Amino acid sequence: MNRKDFFKTSLAAAAAVTLGPSVLTACAGRKAADTGARCNVSLQGGKALGETYTEKLDYCESLGVTGFEPGGWELVNQYDDLAKALEGRSVKVSAICAGFEGFILADEPVQKAAFDTSMRRIVEAAGAIGSTGVIMVPAFSRQTPCKPNNQETYDYLCEQLHELGEFAVKCGTTVILEPLNRAECFYLRLVSAAAAICRDAGSEGVKCMGDFWHMKEETSDYAALMSAGKKYLQHIHIASRKNRCTPGEDGEADNYVDGFRALKEIGYDKYISLECGSIGDPAVVIPAAVELIKTQWSQA
Amino acid sequence: MNRKDFFKTSLAAAAAVTLGPSVLTACAGRKAADTGARCNVSLQGGKALGETYTEKLDYCESLGVTGFEPGGWELVNQYDDLAKALEGRSVKVSAICAGFEGFILADEPVQKAAFDTSMRRIVEAAGAIGSTGVIMVPAFSRQTPCKPNNQETYDYLCEQLHELGEFAVKCGTTVILEPLNRAECFYLRLVSAAAAICRDAGSEGVKCMGDFWHMKEETSDYAALMSAGKKYLQHIHIASRKNRCTPGEDGEADNYVDGFRALKEIGYDKYISLECGSIGDPAVVIPAAVELIKTQWSQA
Repeated sequence: MNRKDFFKTSLAAAAAVTLGPSVLTACAGRKAADTGARCNVSLQGGKALGETYTEKLDYCESLGVTGFEPGGWELVNQYDDLAKALEGRSVKVSAICAGFEGFILADEPVQKAAFDTSMRRIVEAAGAIGSTGVIMVPAFSRQTPCKPNNQETYDYLCEQLHELGEFAVKCGTTVILEPLNRAECFYLRLVSAAAAICRDAGSEGVKCMGDFWHMKEETSDYAALMSAGKKYLQHIHIASRKNRCTPGEDGEADNYVDGFRALKEIGYDKYISLECGSIGDPAVVIPAAVELIKTQWSQA
Repeated sequence: MNRKDFFKTSLAAAAAVTLGPSVLTACAGRKAADTGARCNVSLQGGKALGETYTEKLDYCESLGVTGFEPGGWELVNQYDDLAKALEGRSVKVSAICAGFEGFILADEPVQKAAFDTSMRRIVEAAGAIGSTGVIMVPAFSRQTPCKPNNQETYDYLCEQLHELGEFAVKCGTTVILEPLNRAECFYLRLVSAAAAICRDAGSEGVKCMGDFWHMKEETSDYAALMSAGKKYLQHIHIASRKNRCTPGEDGEADNYVDGFRALKEIGYDKYISLECGSIGDPAVVIPAAVELIKTQWSQA
């Protein structure tokens, strides 16, 4: 046996002896497969510094940010301005942040109708502008009267979402359920619960998301995002973890690596979007946040 | 450089070139660390064939089953018989399956008091016999009147569980929240939600579990059990996945590997207990189920 053959045989033998079968498979898989996960950073409108859409999108591009997240009503009212400013750019619209009137679990027909109409206007615009989807919440805690929290209401929600989702598919986009922390929303607080609703709604147009601020409700960032998987996870919001400021402003607490690990594992290729305040100078803390996200992504 | 050094250097170099950092760490970690996970199979009383506790426990031991799961009221009423039959055996009591009266979310004082009293009697007996914990459900769907499903009730539940958990700790055991599927329970259907309650109850005596039958509610077995982690996951129930019969009786559907992968990763060392019916001859299908569990555990 020559040296090359000896080496190859020994390498395989050493690997077989020391590593369990699933790790060997993982090693082999890792060599071959890029899961397709990508770190696409996005800024909400207020975080993209500038007065006009052109300035804001220039700012995004200057930071290597590839996504821009406007509000829903803003999208509908300023569609032409935004569409024009986006022409020929590398930065795209990521998700649309809500903006609808009423709410889907309204127990009062006028509020429900207001949701149905306004949401569909936003979804139509979202599809036209190439957005990944329109973020929504089934019911904020302050929104009343709300249908009671029981199986009948859950089934109703899934039916309503199915219809809305199918409409979104026709428009070329999705609706994205966002779980919130208990101060803002009792009805939906966990990503796994949102993912289960996606499954039960049974439409390709119904997706969910995780927001690292609201994910204080989770026992595990990793498990939460794994429960949604590539199939349902359509968007991520990110903020500092103690005060909902710009990532990095809460120091050691701003650790997203466990969640990013899940994003990489599932092949998440949508956006990670800053929805947050700022304590420090935005011109300093926003670029720092973009760097922090990219650094922690590589560590995950 | 001699052949041995060449080999060692090349091995390391080859590994560094082809594997990403987190996989290298995983490989190194796998060589060094046994997570402490153990496949301890348990049988509920009805699945342990035999007329007396002695016969049932002999049967467990004949199959290499190390856990026995009685009902709560049975434990209280037949404590001495069971304790005597357990003397000197390798098989132990695993969890205690409910048996309490009333329910913790009862909106009617007599039912709540019945729960408080009966549950504490069972918890006391569970501690004395060395059980891992007493399984409970906050409210079956058929149990009324039930407190409304809102934040106030959630906070109340966590307070009540905290008290109950501290009592369980004093008795040397725990209480174990079991999420159920929507046909039986609307209030608690996901392991991640149960884990969040454990965290919010803030007592070492409050734990949760996953039941592979009820986990049809989950989008991911793996993510569900990861969300509980070693910290909160205290028990597992297992049944065939289509008809809730003995594992293996539903053929290809009876695949628990994804969930077992999580159990191994978190170092789960409690019990996996059969709570199920049987279509075929129990004397055939129960041993087959024990083998299936051990086989799929090794595959995970």
